[in-house]
Amino acid sequence: MKHISLIIHTKHMYTLQGSGVGYEFGKTLAIDGSKIVAIGNSDDILSEYTAYKIIDATDKLVLPGFIDGHMHTGHGVLRGVAQDINNWMHEGMAPFETVRSSQAKTAGSELAIAEAVLNGTTTIGDDGSDMLGALQFIDKIGVRGNVSVRVRSALIKTYKDGELYVFDENYAKKTLDEALALFNQFHNKDGERIKIRFGPQGADFLDLELLEKVKRLAQERKTKIHMHLAQGIRESKQMLLRYQRRTIPMLDEMGYFDKDFIGIHLTDATDEEVQVVAKRNISMILCSNSIGLINGQVPPAVEFIKNAGVVGLGSDQAPGNNCHNMFAEMKSTAVFNKIKYSSSTIMPAWQTLRMATIDCAKALGIDSLTGSLEEGKSADIIFVDLNTPSMCPVYTTPMRNIIPNLVYSARGNEVNTVIANGKIIVENRVPLTFELQEILANAQGYADQIGVKAAKVFNEINGMNARYMKEGKL
Amino acid sequence: MKHISLIIHTKHMYTLQGSGVGYEFGKTLAIDGSKIVAIGNSDDILSEYTAYKIIDATDKLVLPGFIDGHMHTGHGVLRGVAQDINNWMHEGMAPFETVRSSQAKTAGSELAIAEAVLNGTTTIGDDGSDMLGALQFIDKIGVRGNVSVRVRSALIKTYKDGELYVFDENYAKKTLDEALALFNQFHNKDGERIKIRFGPQGADFLDLELLEKVKRLAQERKTKIHMHLAQGIRESKQMLLRYQRRTIPMLDEMGYFDKDFIGIHLTDATDEEVQVVAKRNISMILCSNSIGLINGQVPPAVEFIKNAGVVGLGSDQAPGNNCHNMFAEMKSTAVFNKIKYSSSTIMPAWQTLRMATIDCAKALGIDSLTGSLEEGKSADIIFVDLNTPSMCPVYTTPMRNIIPNLVYSARGNEVNTVIANGKIIVENRVPLTFELQEILANAQGYADQIGVKAAKVFNEINGMNARYMKEGKL
Repeated sequence: MKHISLIIHTKHMYTLQGSGVGYEFGKTLAIDGSKIVAIGNSDDILSEYTAYKIIDATDKLVLPGFIDGHMHTGHGVLRGVAQDINNWMHEGMAPFETVRSSQAKTAGSELAIAEAVLNGTTTIGDDGSDMLGALQFIDKIGVRGNVSVRVRSALIKTYKDGELYVFDENYAKKTLDEALALFNQFHNKDGERIKIRFGPQGADFLDLELLEKVKRLAQERKTKIHMHLAQGIRESKQMLLRYQRRTIPMLDEMGYFDKDFIGIHLTDATDEEVQVVAKRNISMILCSNSIGLINGQVPPAVEFIKNAGVVGLGSDQAPGNNCHNMFAEMKSTAVFNKIKYSSSTIMPAWQTLRMATIDCAKALGIDSLTGSLEEGKSADIIFVDLNTPSMCPVYTTPMRNIIPNLVYSARGNEVNTVIANGKIIVENRVPLTFELQEILANAQGYADQIGVKAAKVFNEINGMNARYMKEGKL
Repeated sequence: MKHISLIIHTKHMYTLQGSGVGYEFGKTLAIDGSKIVAIGNSDDILSEYTAYKIIDATDKLVLPGFIDGHMHTGHGVLRGVAQDINNWMHEGMAPFETVRSSQAKTAGSELAIAEAVLNGTTTIGDDGSDMLGALQFIDKIGVRGNVSVRVRSALIKTYKDGELYVFDENYAKKTLDEALALFNQFHNKDGERIKIRFGPQGADFLDLELLEKVKRLAQERKTKIHMHLAQGIRESKQMLLRYQRRTIPMLDEMGYFDKDFIGIHLTDATDEEVQVVAKRNISMILCSNSIGLINGQVPPAVEFIKNAGVVGLGSDQAPGNNCHNMFAEMKSTAVFNKIKYSSSTIMPAWQTLRMATIDCAKALGIDSLTGSLEEGKSADIIFVDLNTPSMCPVYTTPMRNIIPNLVYSARGNEVNTVIANGKIIVENRVPLTFELQEILANAQGYADQIGVKAAKVFNEINGMNARYMKEGKL
């Protein structure tokens, strides 16, 4: 009899093994420390193992925790200040982002990560600069992190439309130094629970030398590049102005694309460019709600998959989404693509669930660790209440309606329990490793300061939201 | 000093009065019986009124309850059996709908209505036949109802593609009799809390004589017609086969369109047809998630509004949406239209909030009763938690981010309190006028029976979901 840390009895379990959703009826999970050690019949498991804690989850749905492939958690403190506008970066973000302190950013990260975890996300795919606070929080609360540290040459300031970004060597060095320092401090920490990636912000934001250097460093350190790719007209304009080339052909010529390249968005990629990068085995992160809300566009994920590419989902940021909720990403990914292709059958529920779990793990290169419930993999597991209006009733014959309702009806608050790397982070909706009320109050305190500081520039720009305030529409 | 039933202190209140969202800071609401009697400063209200109950909602957002303009609540018991498929009615609904008893339908209605109310809906815009159970539940729990009773001549059976519906006089009479009986029993019950409308299912489902008769009866009884209009290719095909006409020109010639006509969907209406009906002052109900999921389409609400039409939102049905959640409808309406028009500014948050409240009240012809917080109107009010990740932080300067976060980030479970017609239906997320667990168990019991009975036809049809079951994708 082996003594282990946790045994979970399930009725409806989706392992996400294989090419479907891996449904298993009435199985038991055995977990020791951070890992799943066995999945089997209750009698077999109980004859082999005893556990410190045994959970009866037979009235819940049990599945792998969600993997959010691309987030800017530091923007959490700016939730709701940038949407329904023409120029997201200039009109929406700039007045607020430029007056946000490093501490405010960390407060935003804690808010965004807490939100995501309560919605069932067990892997935080964060991206940005000034990431120490976010990494410390991820480290502390026990979730998985796939964190890319931003590298760029372009100074952060307000640019006019059509103005070339100003590259600065010192600034570039500072960002690269941060990436290397955080890589050294956090990469593969706690049994590979945290991965550090290099995050060149986009081909338009780095000088060529830095682009090449980052690629080389990532290869030397056996980690990945996580990079916005063909993310929009703004990027294409910068590239054409500076190099008279579009991003994808130029990076392809530089040998930038391989299986260790995670491309974010691809909103502006042509069909031909999608084929080029898919052929090179890059992976794609699709941020449906963010790109839909900010750009009114549906990125070419269907095309990418057609070309044998792997796609994961991401929630991007709170100002322009406005939430970190993989339920919302799964539903939107399905329906946006149905609308794009005028087809009710494209992007079915099971496919978007895969894109939020195992396919996102593959896209990020962490599928040997997580993304499915499987012996030897990390215990990254969520329970979803079935005894709740959005998941009721449950049909098991002639078809199971559980996944369609998970994707199209559930909202996030049905997540009852969150386990990451074998540790219970949330139990019966109560966070065990962080103080939610403290995080909310902290973010509110910083927001109060940011609002006052942002007012002057916000009113000078006089964008859509400034006008909506005057018109009584906010 | 007048003694009234309820006083509510608010900090952030949105009245939805005027042409925007009617923001009011730090006001107090006085409610007596079913009606709002005053909105004013706390001191003024408290010098004039004392109340049986005083609620401090200053840490909540206070706004009018949502109005769901079009639902088939009886389908609640079939949640999740019909999506990601080619032929929603035949492949998805038919195997299950044909074996669903009247009692099962009522169980579905109770589930769908409970779900909607917990998500902040105070007006249930139900539509269907066999509506006694739903109406009794609406009556009992105290929410507002705008219920159309379906009238049709076409027999309910499985039709082949391109086969004309079979009209049956006796069946037609039975449906009309139900509509008249329920009209007599429920219309204007409890101080106009319940409205009964006539619901000809669609121009393709009724013979011409019945169409004319229903219109006349609605006029005589001073109620409205609530009708699927140009809802899709299936309807247009039937109309062309039977009359060699499309729906809108034919109904227009019959004098069918006026301010008392509520048109549902308009998915298949041409731009010219939209102009025709908008000119006649009909109103439109837009079911974004349902039409997106079932048809991969975005109905012409923007066109309709451009032609001075009023649009309300609806959640349609649980098998093919798959939820009754106006938060989901507001966000999807905004983003689907941004995608349709490749524009980030179209359909801003404030506009979809209006479409879920005051504009939907106008569309249904109940705006003298509800849809905004206003002296003399019914107290249909919800409180939304602000101290929750999806609504945090709150900016008040230089812009309020509350409505963008309500529409784009909140999910439904932030609704803390629901008041309809002055009665507290839900308080601190606990339903006071219905037993949720009983409703869930009841729906589950009927679903278990339906599943077994539906299996034979479901497997014979062997649609997408039958194949997904075999492929391990459900």
